[in-house]
Amino acid sequence: MTEISKETHYTENVQEHLQQVQRLLEKHALVTSVAQQQEIPRAERQELVDLLLQKRHLSELQEKLNELHPADIAFILEAMPIEQRLLVWDLVKADRDGEILIEVSDAVRESLIAAMSREELREAAEQLDTNEIADLAHDLPQSVMRDVFKSLSIEEREQLRAAMSYPEDAVGALMDFDMVTIREDVTLEVVSRYLRRFDNLPDHTDQLFVLDRDDQFKGVLPLNQLLLNEPEMAVSALMLTDTITLHPDDKAQKAAQAFERYDLVSAPVVDEDGKLLGRVPVNAVVDFIRAESESDVLNLAGLREEEDIFASVWKSAKNRWMWLALNLCTAFFASRVIGGFEHTIEKFVALAALMPIVAGIAGNSGNQTITIIIRSLALGQINPGNARQLLAKELAISLLNGLVWGGIAGGFAYLLYKSVPLGLVMTGAMLLNLLLGALVGMLIPLTMQRLGRDPAIGSSVLLTAITDSGGFFIFLGLATIFLIP
Amino acid sequence: MTEISKETHYTENVQEHLQQVQRLLEKHALVTSVAQQQEIPRAERQELVDLLLQKRHLSELQEKLNELHPADIAFILEAMPIEQRLLVWDLVKADRDGEILIEVSDAVRESLIAAMSREELREAAEQLDTNEIADLAHDLPQSVMRDVFKSLSIEEREQLRAAMSYPEDAVGALMDFDMVTIREDVTLEVVSRYLRRFDNLPDHTDQLFVLDRDDQFKGVLPLNQLLLNEPEMAVSALMLTDTITLHPDDKAQKAAQAFERYDLVSAPVVDEDGKLLGRVPVNAVVDFIRAESESDVLNLAGLREEEDIFASVWKSAKNRWMWLALNLCTAFFASRVIGGFEHTIEKFVALAALMPIVAGIAGNSGNQTITIIIRSLALGQINPGNARQLLAKELAISLLNGLVWGGIAGGFAYLLYKSVPLGLVMTGAMLLNLLLGALVGMLIPLTMQRLGRDPAIGSSVLLTAITDSGGFFIFLGLATIFLIP
Repeated sequence: MTEISKETHYTENVQEHLQQVQRLLEKHALVTSVAQQQEIPRAERQELVDLLLQKRHLSELQEKLNELHPADIAFILEAMPIEQRLLVWDLVKADRDGEILIEVSDAVRESLIAAMSREELREAAEQLDTNEIADLAHDLPQSVMRDVFKSLSIEEREQLRAAMSYPEDAVGALMDFDMVTIREDVTLEVVSRYLRRFDNLPDHTDQLFVLDRDDQFKGVLPLNQLLLNEPEMAVSALMLTDTITLHPDDKAQKAAQAFERYDLVSAPVVDEDGKLLGRVPVNAVVDFIRAESESDVLNLAGLREEEDIFASVWKSAKNRWMWLALNLCTAFFASRVIGGFEHTIEKFVALAALMPIVAGIAGNSGNQTITIIIRSLALGQINPGNARQLLAKELAISLLNGLVWGGIAGGFAYLLYKSVPLGLVMTGAMLLNLLLGALVGMLIPLTMQRLGRDPAIGSSVLLTAITDSGGFFIFLGLATIFLIP
Repeated sequence: MTEISKETHYTENVQEHLQQVQRLLEKHALVTSVAQQQEIPRAERQELVDLLLQKRHLSELQEKLNELHPADIAFILEAMPIEQRLLVWDLVKADRDGEILIEVSDAVRESLIAAMSREELREAAEQLDTNEIADLAHDLPQSVMRDVFKSLSIEEREQLRAAMSYPEDAVGALMDFDMVTIREDVTLEVVSRYLRRFDNLPDHTDQLFVLDRDDQFKGVLPLNQLLLNEPEMAVSALMLTDTITLHPDDKAQKAAQAFERYDLVSAPVVDEDGKLLGRVPVNAVVDFIRAESESDVLNLAGLREEEDIFASVWKSAKNRWMWLALNLCTAFFASRVIGGFEHTIEKFVALAALMPIVAGIAGNSGNQTITIIIRSLALGQINPGNARQLLAKELAISLLNGLVWGGIAGGFAYLLYKSVPLGLVMTGAMLLNLLLGALVGMLIPLTMQRLGRDPAIGSSVLLTAITDSGGFFIFLGLATIFLIP
């Protein structure tokens, strides 16, 4: 667990820290550039003065950094271009490297680890708890992991192996092993004396875990109970037995929902045999919720992973290519659908100007459907019992939208081109394509869910492909039938 | 604070509860429909049996509901069509109405409140803490609020007035007033004795708040310290003074980031004069983070607010109209841009098939830029010092993308239509429109931020409007210049 020194400054406004560090770095850069401009001539004395000045700024900066919480240093590192970032990273005390590596984003961590020696990495990793080492493991070189592994006790090795064995979205990945366990057959007095032997309790200790003689999990004793009751009461009389217990292979998503519903601070993780493996603290859940919501937003824009905003152009471009390639393919396909109607467009060129309207609005409306369905699926609100009802409702909304917006678009087409048939084709095409959008906007996420895939990934690109090509096909098809003599 | 009865069942899998309730409701519906089909003839005896059967299912259901945590009942209510929802709501014990109303989503709360009498609403509100009443206030009829207000003590009225005065996105809105305060000049022994007088500590009490004789906030005493140290130690010697303090008018977003960075369980809220007003507990922060991330996703799809999935078609449609109307306007505009080039398209109809590709890819790529910029703005990572550097980087990525994907699209156009000039126009247009997308993808959120507006709202529709119209203009304009003799 992270031990925060007394001098650590907490702040609600971490941007201020960033600006202070930036100012110190600017001073440093200024002095450095002055020293460089003057080069050697003005005697060595001058140079020494410059060097000292430069050192002073750096030591001022170092002092400032030492005062900061690891999470704030992580924030500052993330907000800095790579050169300044590595300068700041060098100034951070080596014994805090581990905690900071845990806090930075994956992309930035990569850039920091790339600048560290094997020895530094090993030392950084050894400052951490086993569950934290597991979080770093896939970023560390294998040789470093081997060294780290050797330095651990047998119990820790087992914990590390366990922690590394769970997938990122499982409860096991949120678990830590740092907790206080007690026996049920003692009094509060005994528990209090036992606790006083600790220098510090693990963070987020709101309850103690009660085990029997065979290390079976029996229940929890909230610290409140310890404080509110007389010392001679027995643990067994006060402990809660019907509390929530998590299992390491469960989805982290479910654990997060349980934390939200029941306002938990920590929860025990128990294996099939009822043995206590560890606990999930609320901060791990908060981080999980935040990471998950970020990846939702990133996925919607087709970003494969979080980007270090100062990463190289090449690296950022690669992060975005899959999506653009995919969209280019669907755009090519839609283009071929239009190509099939070139004769119709040649005869009635207004169609070319109107067709993007038909495609676009259905895409927007279908995306609204998809967003609502994905959200309800994530919350577990949709089951076979109500899916049909929802589909009927979404189709009804599209029908309404088709009549309203299709009518407006048809009127617009009529006013521009003074053709009643064109207006009617426009309205009809809008209506049909909106219905198509609602239908596939329901079916895509439901099908992906049934296939065991995350409906949030790729649903929207598939929908747009269908509403685009479908929209062009419906509109130009209707036009070919009704407008071309 | 919610007092959970001993019989409350916690579960990681709330869907199971939902299914059980659904099964019980189905049984009930079956019995009801049988009773109705048989009508009166088969003698009153039969009817009575049916009624009893029906009653039995309902009482079974009621029993089941009584066992559930208010948050789980809220989940079940949200996942039910309106008729079943109101049936379940009727069966819930009246003394739990308040806690449940707090837990359900805004849209569902509306449907429940609409079904309650003024008297019921007043009773429900009176079960709650003042900060919870403040959360409900804008959904309750004014007459009910007046009654509730009258029933409060003077101190509570002041709290309620304070809580209602903060905007939804301020720290004050996350604050509760339920906390334990102590004096600094006492020993731990005294504090322990004081705590034992409580029946229960407020949820998420991880620290006690230390005040001086003038009620000025002095610091916090973590419960850990109370447990780890000898009873004769003084509070003043153990309390932490350099902890984070929040201010009620600060943005909730900043407080949430502080909770994440420092892994807090609770934090004191202090006014300008150093007086302790209340505290923010971690569960309020978790709810805030979740709500915020949901509204991000909803905003992206142009949904004005969270939808009750079983709301009427009319209500849902209205929730989605603003967005569709806005998009229809931008689509009309883009359509007029195309309309301006009808002569060009008439002569070279392939342009109609290719133009959506140019518009679409730049929209996708610009959305990637916007997503990254909005995220970095929210984290506070962008400041005037690095904005220009980021713009240069985004433009460089677009240049690269323009060459790669523009080249591929140009090749595609050439292969289809055997025209080198057409291929070159395609590549050039893609390149220019991708650069346009990156430029406006940077400038829109930065400008909105500077104007003090939320860059997450509306940025993407504006971007798409520009990349669509711009793409059509650039592509058809280049074609007019270079392809038409």
